[in-house]
Amino acid sequence: MPDPRFFQRAGPFRVREIAAWTGATAPGQQDLDRAISDVGDLKSATSDDLAYFAGAEHAAAANASQCGACLTTESLSAKAPAGAVVLIVDDPQAAFSIAADAFYPAAQIPISVATLDGSGAYIDPSAKIGDGVVIEAGAVVGPGTEIGNRSRIGAGSVVGPGVVVGEDCHLGPNVTLMVCIVGSGVILHPGVAVGQDGFGFVFDSVAGRHRKVPQLGRVLIDDDVEIGANTTIDRGTLNDTVIGEGCRIDNQVQIGHNVVLGKRCIVVSQVGISGSCTIGDDVILAGQVGLADNVTIGPSAQVAAKSGVMRDVPPGEAVMGYPAKPIRKFWREIAAVQRLTDGKKRSK
Amino acid sequence: MPDPRFFQRAGPFRVREIAAWTGATAPGQQDLDRAISDVGDLKSATSDDLAYFAGAEHAAAANASQCGACLTTESLSAKAPAGAVVLIVDDPQAAFSIAADAFYPAAQIPISVATLDGSGAYIDPSAKIGDGVVIEAGAVVGPGTEIGNRSRIGAGSVVGPGVVVGEDCHLGPNVTLMVCIVGSGVILHPGVAVGQDGFGFVFDSVAGRHRKVPQLGRVLIDDDVEIGANTTIDRGTLNDTVIGEGCRIDNQVQIGHNVVLGKRCIVVSQVGISGSCTIGDDVILAGQVGLADNVTIGPSAQVAAKSGVMRDVPPGEAVMGYPAKPIRKFWREIAAVQRLTDGKKRSK
Amino acid sequence: MPDPRFFQRAGPFRVREIAAWTGATAPGQQDLDRAISDVGDLKSATSDDLAYFAGAEHAAAANASQCGACLTTESLSAKAPAGAVVLIVDDPQAAFSIAADAFYPAAQIPISVATLDGSGAYIDPSAKIGDGVVIEAGAVVGPGTEIGNRSRIGAGSVVGPGVVVGEDCHLGPNVTLMVCIVGSGVILHPGVAVGQDGFGFVFDSVAGRHRKVPQLGRVLIDDDVEIGANTTIDRGTLNDTVIGEGCRIDNQVQIGHNVVLGKRCIVVSQVGISGSCTIGDDVILAGQVGLADNVTIGPSAQVAAKSGVMRDVPPGEAVMGYPAKPIRKFWREIAAVQRLTDGKKRSK
Repeated sequence: MPDPRFFQRAGPFRVREIAAWTGATAPGQQDLDRAISDVGDLKSATSDDLAYFAGAEHAAAANASQCGACLTTESLSAKAPAGAVVLIVDDPQAAFSIAADAFYPAAQIPISVATLDGSGAYIDPSAKIGDGVVIEAGAVVGPGTEIGNRSRIGAGSVVGPGVVVGEDCHLGPNVTLMVCIVGSGVILHPGVAVGQDGFGFVFDSVAGRHRKVPQLGRVLIDDDVEIGANTTIDRGTLNDTVIGEGCRIDNQVQIGHNVVLGKRCIVVSQVGISGSCTIGDDVILAGQVGLADNVTIGPSAQVAAKSGVMRDVPPGEAVMGYPAKPIRKFWREIAAVQRLTDGKKRSK
Repeated sequence: MPDPRFFQRAGPFRVREIAAWTGATAPGQQDLDRAISDVGDLKSATSDDLAYFAGAEHAAAANASQCGACLTTESLSAKAPAGAVVLIVDDPQAAFSIAADAFYPAAQIPISVATLDGSGAYIDPSAKIGDGVVIEAGAVVGPGTEIGNRSRIGAGSVVGPGVVVGEDCHLGPNVTLMVCIVGSGVILHPGVAVGQDGFGFVFDSVAGRHRKVPQLGRVLIDDDVEIGANTTIDRGTLNDTVIGEGCRIDNQVQIGHNVVLGKRCIVVSQVGISGSCTIGDDVILAGQVGLADNVTIGPSAQVAAKSGVMRDVPPGEAVMGYPAKPIRKFWREIAAVQRLTDGKKRSK
Repeated sequence: MPDPRFFQRAGPFRVREIAAWTGATAPGQQDLDRAISDVGDLKSATSDDLAYFAGAEHAAAANASQCGACLTTESLSAKAPAGAVVLIVDDPQAAFSIAADAFYPAAQIPISVATLDGSGAYIDPSAKIGDGVVIEAGAVVGPGTEIGNRSRIGAGSVVGPGVVVGEDCHLGPNVTLMVCIVGSGVILHPGVAVGQDGFGFVFDSVAGRHRKVPQLGRVLIDDDVEIGANTTIDRGTLNDTVIGEGCRIDNQVQIGHNVVLGKRCIVVSQVGISGSCTIGDDVILAGQVGLADNVTIGPSAQVAAKSGVMRDVPPGEAVMGYPAKPIRKFWREIAAVQRLTDGKKRSK
């Protein structure tokens, strides 16, 4: 059960309501007026709780579950918890997520310290602050900035001069925004740093030192983007660094200058995208992947975790390895190397 | 010699006292009343300083050392510095560490800016603040929080609503804590971010966008844990993310939602632990290791640096590679691949 | 065109002036009095703009470019944009960078929120603050610190007790400095954490816990160093962690205790350097490289992206792989493994 110290619960709701939100059907004669007061997993849910059952590997947990209602698929429904009202959907996890939102309506909004009275924020008089904006204690909002309606600036966050933040955005604590334009509905988790200088310099052989190349581009973050804690995104050199609409970027990702990320990309934790890479729509980069600079990744391509990509990846291709290659080829080579030593042992 | 600008020294102490703290024996007729005023390494230590000699590879440095007293092992004692009082222990580095604590008693406490007068912190009136708590300038402590006796909240750190911090904890500057319960004696270095939303979403094909899965769990950090700078720990989806007692987590580690880390684990810098991994007690994950989601690592297992772990690792096993395999197998395969090209060169 | 919201432009300038700054020659009878008002890339530049053309792969873009003046090399000049005044230099990108500095003279200085009135910074009365220093809102400057002339301390940054910052340094927002001495002309981007405890402990078998080894060294950062966002640098155990003059360190780099980095090293994003490594002058560590502890990298050596270095690397050597080996050997082995599966397919 979610800890009431942190999460405020709505409800209870009737099973009938849950079915309506999720488009679920309830086979046979079941009690759709049963009251459900919370969400939980199969193991911890009580007879007052909604759980979900997705994947045959959880059949034992489903069999033992005490949950009061259970979202599952048609094919798994025969193995659903015995005492539960069974609700049939195509994607039980997605449906459960919708129900969980109804029980915890604030859960789509990052936790905030904004119930402080807001004093102690530093807001430049030239900043344009929208309606319903919350600026938490210790935040700094610079000159010439614009903060859209209902957006929140987390405690200790810094919004640099000229930065534009759209509507319904949420900056967690200790975020830094510089030289960027942020769309609407964007979530930036704690410690994100956007818009600092890219890593650009040329060696000045006369002075015997690296000379900084001026970084004159911006970072453009489109609507409905979520960026994880301590991720860093450098601004462009001449053109902009661009994060497309609907992208989901995890914690500790590094995005170099001039990178263009398409729409709805998923970038998992600790990925590094070098400067000037171009990433198509719907690309998935799994954890700790590294991309060399100037690489192009086609739409809907997928790069497996820890891969090192040095060449362009065609649309829809799945690659893996260091250096990355088509994923089947990667596994064939892994198997071939393994046989080398299998052979050695046999010959002894 | 530690810089007095940053570190306050106690002492001098007599060799006799050092021996007592560390359980050392002093063979032969040595001057146990000799005064020692500081600690140093073999190379820089003067005749007033204590050093330690561990590992035969440092025999030359020991031979040349001017140190006044030297902690070493029985077997190395014949090669100990000629002019030094020699103290025999099992583990010279551990003994030296105990002595260094006595010379620098504050060194177990992270450096703090708390000698500022504490003004400029934002403390919600509903926060429960223990005895002897220090909240540094610019820190923000939210509503409903509890800060245990003698804990310190670093400059610019943010403690979100409802968060509980135990006794004798030390948060460095610019730390963010949200939706978490922290035990006692916990050290959180600068820039740590704990308790933000995990990386959870489902694709909503009607809306054509990724829909956020509500993250309703917490982060539980047990007693005596140390967490390095800019490390990120996401809160759980329904259950909690758990960091077991006595864990040592280095800088820039990423820990996903629902991860359970056992007791006394060592997690080196830049490791990424994906969601729902279960890590047993006393596990060591070396630098830049990546774990796929839902992986179980048995107690006392070890994962070598940079490995990518995609399957469960049995208790006590040592694995390495990408994908990770038993460490001997890894090295056999490395050797086999090397022979492939040795052969090529020979055949030319 | 750089966004005037963020970047203030000087000029216009005549081509003659650009040639003088960059040492360019202008072959034939060209209009050196032509006025140039901005910088841009080949694609977006208008007839009022300067662009550069370096690399035959950009010949099509050069052919289509509308730019008013173009920096290029002798050998590429035949393919330079038809309508442009052509300026010949050895290194077009470096020359363009010099010109861009002239058009945007503030671009060498990180963007700052310092146009706020500076209230709300916490400055200990014992701090020595130089002439022309700017301390932004929400910054905390501890006791016994020294901030050199013309340096800027970014919003929300924390300068711990005793820390020395030289002249003309720029700390971005939310930086943490502890137990360190910083030279002049140093740039620290947002979220950098310097000087926290290194990852040092010994197992205390009596207490059954890891015991912290006191970290009594400092971090010394020499002149003209740039350090990227959210990078972490631990202080030394007994000796200092040292960052040599002129180093360029990218975002999210981890540098362990007692590391010594030579002059002018380039350390790309997400590199991890374990404790006590010694890196010579002019070394390049590409993205996501990991170094085991105590490794020595010789001057001018290069480590390719994602490599895992477990042994010393001789001066000037280029290595790659996991474990890292000479780069030619790495590629030979990659080819040999590939042939293993090529063979398999042929035999079917």
